[in-house]
Amino acid sequence: MISFNQRLQNRINHIQSWLCVGIDVAPERFPTSESSLDEMKDHAEKIVNATADLTVAYKPNFAFFERWGSAGFDWLKELVKLIPDGPLLIADAKRGDIGSTAEQYVKSIFDYFGFDAVTLSPYMGSDSIQPFINNPEKGAFILTRTSNPSAKDIQNMAIDSEPLFMKVSQWATTLNLNENVGLVVGATALDELKMIRDATPNLPFLIPGIGAQGGDLETSMKVGNQKGIGLINVSRGINFAGDLSEKSIRLAAKSYVEKMQTIMES
Amino acid sequence: MISFNQRLQNRINHIQSWLCVGIDVAPERFPTSESSLDEMKDHAEKIVNATADLTVAYKPNFAFFERWGSAGFDWLKELVKLIPDGPLLIADAKRGDIGSTAEQYVKSIFDYFGFDAVTLSPYMGSDSIQPFINNPEKGAFILTRTSNPSAKDIQNMAIDSEPLFMKVSQWATTLNLNENVGLVVGATALDELKMIRDATPNLPFLIPGIGAQGGDLETSMKVGNQKGIGLINVSRGINFAGDLSEKSIRLAAKSYVEKMQTIMES
Repeated sequence: MISFNQRLQNRINHIQSWLCVGIDVAPERFPTSESSLDEMKDHAEKIVNATADLTVAYKPNFAFFERWGSAGFDWLKELVKLIPDGPLLIADAKRGDIGSTAEQYVKSIFDYFGFDAVTLSPYMGSDSIQPFINNPEKGAFILTRTSNPSAKDIQNMAIDSEPLFMKVSQWATTLNLNENVGLVVGATALDELKMIRDATPNLPFLIPGIGAQGGDLETSMKVGNQKGIGLINVSRGINFAGDLSEKSIRLAAKSYVEKMQTIMES
Repeated sequence: MISFNQRLQNRINHIQSWLCVGIDVAPERFPTSESSLDEMKDHAEKIVNATADLTVAYKPNFAFFERWGSAGFDWLKELVKLIPDGPLLIADAKRGDIGSTAEQYVKSIFDYFGFDAVTLSPYMGSDSIQPFINNPEKGAFILTRTSNPSAKDIQNMAIDSEPLFMKVSQWATTLNLNENVGLVVGATALDELKMIRDATPNLPFLIPGIGAQGGDLETSMKVGNQKGIGLINVSRGINFAGDLSEKSIRLAAKSYVEKMQTIMES
């Protein structure tokens, strides 16, 4: 049995990429008139066709599917099916509930949809995480220092003179008994990224915030991969690249991967 | 326009009940052989028929629907439709994501499903909450001190000698500009419940943990309703009462409401 964190490392080694493609397709994000669910489906398929050999993982955010109700859940299931072998599948669901409820979410995310990993909120503590990490092959990325402007409201509060996100990262380390726990750490807060990387050398980082949110690719890559894996998520910057054609999407993804390779070689 | 918190108060005044019925129906919870989605649907309908005049609100937990995939989302939509006018609808979804994603969840929870309120995680800060509370008629209950055993892992960490949940409750108060913010505070941690009620006299509390989780009804009711609304959630204790008949479910709900009325009169 190969642990989730090892599966991630193997995929990175195999394709020499540190890219995770977020799949967040919504009508509001098209500059033109695309608005139907079928158009969203076509566009998501285009993203997969353009990037499957370049990406370590896909990370669809559940909100963009749930807004369509059950038809959106059908779409998510279809999308997972059309992704070829290779890329890992990270459910960006940010769930967090009591243990018995978390077990129901496991049935949804891992059993029904077939994801390899999930993003989770730390707020409700270990019993809200445990059901997702009992199987070493499946992984969980725990929100630690997120990329949004108001992340600091709660996450930067000081506990014994250390910010909460540092406490969360140390606590997450204690859950990593099966080598399948990682952290979500945004590229928009580089000081925080450095602090967390220094404190948790073994946990893989899922790093959002590059592109539309303004994060710094070079520093995030260097710091994130200094001691462990730093997986860089790009959503809008690839989903809606150029003229939205498969070619433009592929060029954008390829450009990110080449920049990453150059950074890692330097 | 009536704010969500006022709608809640009006319903409580109207039926003299402080009961919220959680709808968490899963095959694992039946003592016998019920296991199909149709059996779950029938049972949920039975719960609604037995309790609609007794309950302030229904609180279906999304995990119990999502485990069935898109068929579960169809079920949730049907369930919302069959609930008669009167009870408010709280989506126990515990979401929490960056602002632009939160807007997508608003489309799912309020627009598609038609809920009146939602439970949210505070971890990502104000921009993860704001889209849900822009409309005063819709409400958000923010996880503050939850009812599960590991709640204390993160929530009881000390910030400037105060536990994190106290900071979260103070912060939630600053978001209550539209009179539509409440807190989730578990009945299993009574000292914490008292502290939070003293500090946030105006916010309604959604109080889970009564019944299967072992919370204390009398103290929770008294403390929760001392200064503001204390809405008591019961899920398993009503969903799976007695022989699981509509009559048993109604008797259980009625017994809770009568106890609540007695406590409020004393």
